[in-house]
This record gives sequence, C-alpha cells and structure tokens, in this order.
Amino acid sequence: MDFGFKVTARDRDTKARTGKITTPHGEVITPVFMPVGTKATVKAMTPEELLSIGTEIVLSNAYHLYLRPGDELIKEAGGLHKFMHWNRPILTDSGGFQVFSLSPVVKIDDDGVEFRSIIDGSLHHYSPEKAIKVQENLGADIIMPLDQPLAYPADKDETVVALIRTTAWAKRCKKAQKRDDQWLFGIVQGGFDPALRKKSADEITSIGFDGYSIGGLSVGEPHDVMYSMLDITVDRLPEDRPRYLMGVGLAENIVEAIERGIDMFDCALPTRVARNGLAYTWEGKVSIRNNKYQNDHGPLDGDCGCYSCKNYSRAYIRHLFISNEILAHRLLTLHNLFFTQKVVNKARDAIRENRFKLFKNDFLALQASKKK
Amino acid sequence: MDFGFKVTARDRDTKARTGKITTPHGEVITPVFMPVGTKATVKAMTPEELLSIGTEIVLSNAYHLYLRPGDELIKEAGGLHKFMHWNRPILTDSGGFQVFSLSPVVKIDDDGVEFRSIIDGSLHHYSPEKAIKVQENLGADIIMPLDQPLAYPADKDETVVALIRTTAWAKRCKKAQKRDDQWLFGIVQGGFDPALRKKSADEITSIGFDGYSIGGLSVGEPHDVMYSMLDITVDRLPEDRPRYLMGVGLAENIVEAIERGIDMFDCALPTRVARNGLAYTWEGKVSIRNNKYQNDHGPLDGDCGCYSCKNYSRAYIRHLFISNEILAHRLLTLHNLFFTQKVVNKARDAIRENRFKLFKNDFLALQASKKK
Repeated sequence: MDFGFKVTARDRDTKARTGKITTPHGEVITPVFMPVGTKATVKAMTPEELLSIGTEIVLSNAYHLYLRPGDELIKEAGGLHKFMHWNRPILTDSGGFQVFSLSPVVKIDDDGVEFRSIIDGSLHHYSPEKAIKVQENLGADIIMPLDQPLAYPADKDETVVALIRTTAWAKRCKKAQKRDDQWLFGIVQGGFDPALRKKSADEITSIGFDGYSIGGLSVGEPHDVMYSMLDITVDRLPEDRPRYLMGVGLAENIVEAIERGIDMFDCALPTRVARNGLAYTWEGKVSIRNNKYQNDHGPLDGDCGCYSCKNYSRAYIRHLFISNEILAHRLLTLHNLFFTQKVVNKARDAIRENRFKLFKNDFLALQASKKK
Repeated sequence: MDFGFKVTARDRDTKARTGKITTPHGEVITPVFMPVGTKATVKAMTPEELLSIGTEIVLSNAYHLYLRPGDELIKEAGGLHKFMHWNRPILTDSGGFQVFSLSPVVKIDDDGVEFRSIIDGSLHHYSPEKAIKVQENLGADIIMPLDQPLAYPADKDETVVALIRTTAWAKRCKKAQKRDDQWLFGIVQGGFDPALRKKSADEITSIGFDGYSIGGLSVGEPHDVMYSMLDITVDRLPEDRPRYLMGVGLAENIVEAIERGIDMFDCALPTRVARNGLAYTWEGKVSIRNNKYQNDHGPLDGDCGCYSCKNYSRAYIRHLFISNEILAHRLLTLHNLFFTQKVVNKARDAIRENRFKLFKNDFLALQASKKK
C-alpha cells in the first residue's frame, strides 16, 4: 500500500505536531485543512484553483453522492478522482452525520438506519457495510466508518446507546472493507461526557484503524467544552496515527485544536460564509455587504496576496455581491480558502520552529483586534 | 489618438471581411464577438479565463453601471478597466436600450427620457449629454450615443419619431463628447421599414462617427427580416469604418451577418443559455439537463478542446447543473464563449482564404444535422 504517516516535527511547548500523510494520490502535509466538496465539487472552485492556493486534499460526502448522482455511476466513470477532475488525495465522510442531520429518519436500530432522501423522499437503508460499499465505489483515499453522532446537548442514555452502536458499527466497517488501497479511519464519539469519550476512544483504538477521527464535536457546544473533549480524546489516541477533528474549520478553532495535537480538519464554513459575503482577514472578519466598503478601493485584506486581493477592490467585490454575481462567490471563496490554508501553513512553520504558542496567541489577538 | 481600423482581407464571393481595430487598450481582430459583462463582469468568468479563450473585447452597460455602483464611483476607482480588472478593450452601450426595455419610463421627449430605476424605483433622467458623461466616467474604449430603439413590430409613425429623435440625439452626443481617447459610434435605427432604415443610415453616416452600430434588430423579428434590414443598411455604411450589429450572438446569426459585412457582435445569449444548462456544440445544441446524459462520460463536445471539454464529462456537468453548483455555470459559460470565439476565428480564416460561403454552409448544415 502506498500509505503512510510520519510525524516530522513536534512543538516543544504544546501537543502540536506536523507530519506527512502519504496516499496513492500524493502527499498531504499536516496539520491540514480539507476544503469541503460535498457534491464532488468545492463550491464555486475548479480543482486548478484549489491547487493554486495550496489545497492538498479535499473532502467529499458519501451520503450526498450516494443519493445523486449515485456511487455506482461514479464508479462507472472511473471513480471520484476522475469524475471531479481532482487527481490529489480525497477523503470521504461515510454519510452518517448527514443521514442523522439532514434526512427524515424512519427507523434506526443496531443493524443500520432507514431514512428518506432529501432530494425525492425515496426510502433508503444505510448500514455499516453499505457505507463501506458506497465509499469503495467512490474510491477516495481515506474513508470513514458509519457512526451515530449526537446533537448538543445529549443525555447520557442516548450517548451510551450511540457509543455502543458506533463501536459495533466500526468493527463491522473494518470487516466489510475489501479494497486495500483506501485508508479506513475510526471515529471516536462519546458525546460530551468525559468518561464516555474516554471509553469510545479506548474501544475504537483497540479495534485498530489507519487514523482516528473525532466526531460529534462542533455541533453547537461551547468552545471550551469542545477543547476539553479534545484534550481527553487526543491523549488516548496513538501517537503514530493521524488525528482528524471532523467539521471544524474556523481558523481560531483550528489553531486551538492544532495546539491539542490534531492533524486534520474539514469544514464547509470558509466556503459557505464566502457565499454569504463574509471574508476572513488577518485582522478579523469583513462583511462585504457593509455600506462602508462601497467606496473602499483597497483589497479585502492588505496582508493576503491571494488572486482576489491582488486584483480586486472591496468596492468591486461588494458591487458584485450586491448584484448577485457569481464572480463575487468565486473571489470570496478563493480568498477564504487561501486564508485558511495560510493559517495552517503558518502553524506548520511555527511548530517546526518551536514557537507555536506565540503564533497562536498573536493570531488570536489580531483576529480579535478589529471587529469589522 | 491610438485608434484605427483597417480591413485586412475581403472574401471574394461575399461582403465578409476581416480587419483590425486598434484601441488604447490593445487590438481587436474582426469579425469579433464581444462577451457581455453587463454589470462590470462577464457572468461567472474571470478576466483571465476570458483571455484564455481568446476574448479580445468585452461589452459593459452604462445603464446598469450608472444605477449601481454608479459611474462616479467607477471613475473614482480609476475607470472601468481597473475596476473590473480587464486591461483590454471595452465597449459600453449607452443604456438607451435598457432604459426603454427594462425601466418603467415616466416620460420621453426630445430632450431625453425620465425613468424609474429597476433597483429601487428612484427617478432618473437620461439625456444624450448624460449618456456621454456616464460613459466618459466609465472610460470604455468605444462608446455609444443615446438612441431610441423600438420593439418588433413597430408602426410607421412611431418609427419615424424614433428615427428623428435618434438622429438629433446622435448629433448632441457627438457634440457632448469631451474625451478624445474614446471612439464614439453612431447607431442606425429605422425599425423594419426599408426606406426608414436607409434614411437613418444616411443621416447617421452624414454626421460622421468612428464606427457604425446597427440597432433595433434581433428584437423578435424573423431572421429573414433582420437579414434584409442588414443588407439595406450595410450598403450605406462607409467601407473604412467598423460595423457593429448590436445584440446578436447566436452563432448561426453571426455567420449570416458576417457574410453581410458585419464586423462586431455582442450578446448575452451564450452566457445566459449556459446558466440555463444549454451547451453549444459543432453538431447542434445540448441541453445538459436531459436524462440521456446521466451516464454519458464523454465531453460536452468531442470537437471542442476547451477547458470544460478537456477535463469534464457530460455526466459530471449534468450532475453539477442538477445540483445547482456554481461550477456548472462556470464550465458551461466558458464552453459557450469558447465555441462562439472559435466560430469567429474560423470565419476569419475562411475570409482570408476566400472560402467563406463554403464555411458558412458547412457550419449551418452541421448545426442543423443533429437536433439534440
């Protein structure tokens, strides 16, 4: 197998680390942010644009692709890489989160989950084996087992049931895996109960996976609750396997999680807020709709250097956004992804130079400095 | 002035000709199709993408930009070229057509037109002098006078009034022009009455402009009516000035008009139909929504070679389109503009090689061959 993970540097004062994941479609330096291409496209971007801003791996979603255009069709097309014209690493989520958060669930039991399609209301059954089959048809480099996430807050009984089920499903997923050119991660759940988080981490690691995802966080809980769950979980994960915090993509949260030893992140936030007119900058967030940018002929962010900032003014991008022009979505999406990539790049450098804490504090202070 | 127009070759058997327009922002080979960037952006495209497919000049619209973000703001930004990051030639329409076709018109008289904004209902007054002032603020290379177009069919009395007004306004526009780094074209009107078309052409050419636009066509009349109006008009325009047929962008119409001696075209059609899922191909039009493309892993057009056709399948683009993904609009827009550019490129070659008629007949036959 063309797979591997190697930690190449550790920050002296924190749990932050940088490393390298090798996959059949190339290498990924960690910590890494994975732009979300839910439906086999990172919204508004071409693969070439993603490469131009340094994207190393994208995430796509088995649930959405299973429903449309169908995993069998993508297999027939030569797999997801070819279908979406992205020849670098891809990670697919199993669809568990989407089944539970988007679809009207008809029935859930230990066997799996029956749900209705959000597209046409048709009835579908998803099981651990089905989740693996779908992801084997898609052919991503890294795949996820079916799990049962919870909302926040979750009561203890519910959390226990979901935990037991997640562990049982993880075992079945591992057993169901046929392809040997895909890495299968385990997903730690356990809600917001420290003891259950530990239990889940211990159970999932004892099954043994190629990497470990931390699921069920960033679902509405306060940040300090998320960070304390991270602290508890990461300490129980093996040092030599990548750690992936699912669904976290706000730069402030990313740097906090990197400090706690997380290697991988994904989130639709940078691209979604872009389409709502929000630009990340090194001095905080800019809502481009704001009247005060109407005559602002400077770039979104003077310290950026992305294509959007090099060539267009706030006044122009605001005009495009107000006029509902597609180019507004493109320029803001590119900018936010570039910004997020630059944050992880700077984090990597800081780790290698043993100054991660300083980097983090400076970054967070600057983010909070100007509320725009 | 850095301006000029030179006919470089004439087809032996038709009135088709190829030439070169020189502007302060570069050269344009004719016949040329100008993609429409109504609101200072060719919808879904970046300037770099337009350059990559061979676009030489874009059209923008004074009416829309006057209303939002305002021509004064664009002047303050350094002009339209800088504002929209397009350093090649730009042509602006005066806004006359939009005033009459989009806005609730409150009053029209010989002085000008009073109308309500389609954005916020505010009251505005547009006059020939105002149209020039707005376009001088925008700073395009080629600008248009205010005219009064008509719908099809138009009665004779109405046509006469509009003709007289268009001539009077053309004189005032020429007089109002202050900048000497912009070419001002005259616009021939005259509705669908041969005698009035001739009269308008004679009046406008006797005023003397840098080039001549043919307005008031492609507004719903049958194609043969349009072509006969073209024949009448072109014969009365000077040989040494560019001729611009406003609002025509369907490739079949373009080649017919090139045969009749037209040099310049603009139309929102190739970009608009793209956003509605229609792709032009050398064998006719493809509606990508069609179920039959669901499993079609070939390109939009096997004879194309554009970025979209080189890298993506019909099945993928259909999936994107059905899923309402921005990338669908991008790929289809790029493809349709590439196709239209290639049509004029091939027309230029055919003219230089004295085989325009053959080219036209082959092209039209192939377009009609497969109704997809």
